[in-house]
Amino acid sequence: MNATIINIGDELLIGQVTNTNASVISRMLTSKGFDVKETFTIGDNAEEIRFYLAHCIQRSDIVIITGGLGPTKDDITKKTLCEFFGSELYENETALNNIKVIFEKRGYELTPINRQQSWIPRCCTLLNNLLGTAPGMWFEKDGKVVISLPGVPFEMSYLMEAEVLPRLQEHFNTGYIINKNIIVQGIGESFLSDRIESWELALPKSIRLAYLPQAGMVKLRLTARGADHNRLEQEIAEAVDKLYPIAGEYIVGEDAEALPEIVAQTMTKAGKTLSCAESCTGGSIASKLTQLAGASEYFMGSVTAYSNDVKESILGVSKQTLATYGAVSEETVREMVSGVRERLATDYAVATTGIAGPGGGTTQKPVGTIWIGIASDRQVITKLLHFGDRRAQNIERTCNAVFSELIKLVRAENADSFQRQ
Amino acid sequence: MNATIINIGDELLIGQVTNTNASVISRMLTSKGFDVKETFTIGDNAEEIRFYLAHCIQRSDIVIITGGLGPTKDDITKKTLCEFFGSELYENETALNNIKVIFEKRGYELTPINRQQSWIPRCCTLLNNLLGTAPGMWFEKDGKVVISLPGVPFEMSYLMEAEVLPRLQEHFNTGYIINKNIIVQGIGESFLSDRIESWELALPKSIRLAYLPQAGMVKLRLTARGADHNRLEQEIAEAVDKLYPIAGEYIVGEDAEALPEIVAQTMTKAGKTLSCAESCTGGSIASKLTQLAGASEYFMGSVTAYSNDVKESILGVSKQTLATYGAVSEETVREMVSGVRERLATDYAVATTGIAGPGGGTTQKPVGTIWIGIASDRQVITKLLHFGDRRAQNIERTCNAVFSELIKLVRAENADSFQRQ
Repeated sequence: MNATIINIGDELLIGQVTNTNASVISRMLTSKGFDVKETFTIGDNAEEIRFYLAHCIQRSDIVIITGGLGPTKDDITKKTLCEFFGSELYENETALNNIKVIFEKRGYELTPINRQQSWIPRCCTLLNNLLGTAPGMWFEKDGKVVISLPGVPFEMSYLMEAEVLPRLQEHFNTGYIINKNIIVQGIGESFLSDRIESWELALPKSIRLAYLPQAGMVKLRLTARGADHNRLEQEIAEAVDKLYPIAGEYIVGEDAEALPEIVAQTMTKAGKTLSCAESCTGGSIASKLTQLAGASEYFMGSVTAYSNDVKESILGVSKQTLATYGAVSEETVREMVSGVRERLATDYAVATTGIAGPGGGTTQKPVGTIWIGIASDRQVITKLLHFGDRRAQNIERTCNAVFSELIKLVRAENADSFQRQ
Repeated sequence: MNATIINIGDELLIGQVTNTNASVISRMLTSKGFDVKETFTIGDNAEEIRFYLAHCIQRSDIVIITGGLGPTKDDITKKTLCEFFGSELYENETALNNIKVIFEKRGYELTPINRQQSWIPRCCTLLNNLLGTAPGMWFEKDGKVVISLPGVPFEMSYLMEAEVLPRLQEHFNTGYIINKNIIVQGIGESFLSDRIESWELALPKSIRLAYLPQAGMVKLRLTARGADHNRLEQEIAEAVDKLYPIAGEYIVGEDAEALPEIVAQTMTKAGKTLSCAESCTGGSIASKLTQLAGASEYFMGSVTAYSNDVKESILGVSKQTLATYGAVSEETVREMVSGVRERLATDYAVATTGIAGPGGGTTQKPVGTIWIGIASDRQVITKLLHFGDRRAQNIERTCNAVFSELIKLVRAENADSFQRQ
């Protein structure tokens, strides 16, 4: 079954808000075996909404629309949908009650403009939005399904999970889909492609391979699709088994989406704890690791030492070192990583110090000069990185370098834990 | 001038990678006065690429395509573009040299598959990609401009800034566009809409208003467009002046994109320093604040105290408090925020402790129970938050609550610094 997605909102077209809804919906639909063919972002404009709605209904079985359901003036989706389906708006009692409950909880008074949000076209089925005041709507026309959802990401996600996906699976009798990610590190995409070419060509027809390069790693994604669940699982398992003899030395994880997940897998598998001391990454390492549930199993804590005072007082970097070598130096990162490892009493520790930019560079230490350190009970490894002058990218790449080096060291020092069964 | 954007990539349609390129390009184009009409995400599929390319050329003056230029098998954009424009591929010397330089820098050997990346259609102008091996391309046809860029976000951004925008501004003789953001807090979108309705209706025709609600705030965005730069600036300034008497009590900032930026503006304006102690937010507060350049002016550092040991040893929370009230309690957050403020010697401090979920909840303290604290030299404010069971959302909403409360307190305690001139 094919799906298309229409995200409506002028705020998306001016780029003020990053459109994450398309990706989230795509991920959800894909995981349930629906193919997303195309996604569209358009403005709060009745003519465009009509045009792309008609276009999408022609091209796919399912059309999911987000946005344009708020109470303010620039939101016109509902009216346009109503016209499109030749229906009329009425006050839906369930939607109204839901809005009343939400307003009561928040202690606000219900205004006429809010009450209007409970009006929906007669021809649709209400998808009750327990998390917000804009209702979801389910339309059927000529065997096609059109779904309208609020644009607020968590409301959209809630309705997708609670209402849309179960209904779609029931409505269309969908086959199975299995995804498998293999995470590869230390080899470029094109070299990897050369190396595994014969393996790729020999994959069964039910399996599709995608290269998903991300900073610091390449994700190989196998997608198997068919009616026989067991057979698909077996085919995936066989394909993975055959990959290890060819590229096993570069495989650092399976079924992970990004490096922080592999860090979590690696630390947990090794049964070791971690702490970190961040200067130029400013809390990003800790934040990325703790975004994942269960981080407390191995992650004890971190210190963001943005000022030199904090590097001294909390991490115990010596005034002498800071004065002699500067905050961005191998000596400082060494004391930071040892200091945090000792004070937070963990098996491993990582540290960063550098000039993220765009300001603060000197001739000797230009923007993008970054030292990272990884410490275990046996050794401290330091590495000098040279990046460009983009702050966000420097922070991102530093985090990825730290994660890569940490994974490498923990795997090397705990080889027994990482034998493939 | 209208533009459309086509993002190509199977990885986008399965939602494995969030498509940030559309938003970034939209933001860049908008800031230079180009209107983005629509954006499309499609797969690595020649037929679709042809179809949407033709579709977009009909609908807009500028078509920007990203993705599908990598060396691996699923990338077919270049071939399709070549056919579309009835051209043929040739090895471009500048592109080849660029690739050689990049491979030399990285210490890799150039393979035939990499060398192929230097082949471009004869009919296009090369946009040399100094940051990567996939070249950018500029096509012209029947007065329309088609631009093909690599999908890797930082390479795309680089080419947009260095090559595409200057060429577009020269090619089309564009008018001026001025954006102004007014940040409003403490009033819902619909109440705000009621309150400023007459002001909105009285805006000059050159100005368009958009409501951009984000967690914890509403951004009012004024966009003025026209040929006379001075007049636009004056019209925007007058509109803003008239807004203050109506809604000034809710305005916490101007020209900011999100709460962390307003925190930075607020702290800097007040001339005060900040530290933080994070448990359930796990470094996100520090990370969000330090993503912005210049954070070191007010942000001294933070402690992510994930384990109780770290809460005790680094922040000085008493064992007694943790044992009696638990880590998620008003007492603990109070000691965390006071502890970090004292130890990092800052004017203000913030702290969080809670159950982000999805696990770890109890009947008395279900997932989503979060305490936050804000400390100054005069007082410690604590607040209990009740959110749902989504980890990422709980972390996000906690950060926003902390930022909001901090802004409120700093504005209240330093009122003199926040008089409107």
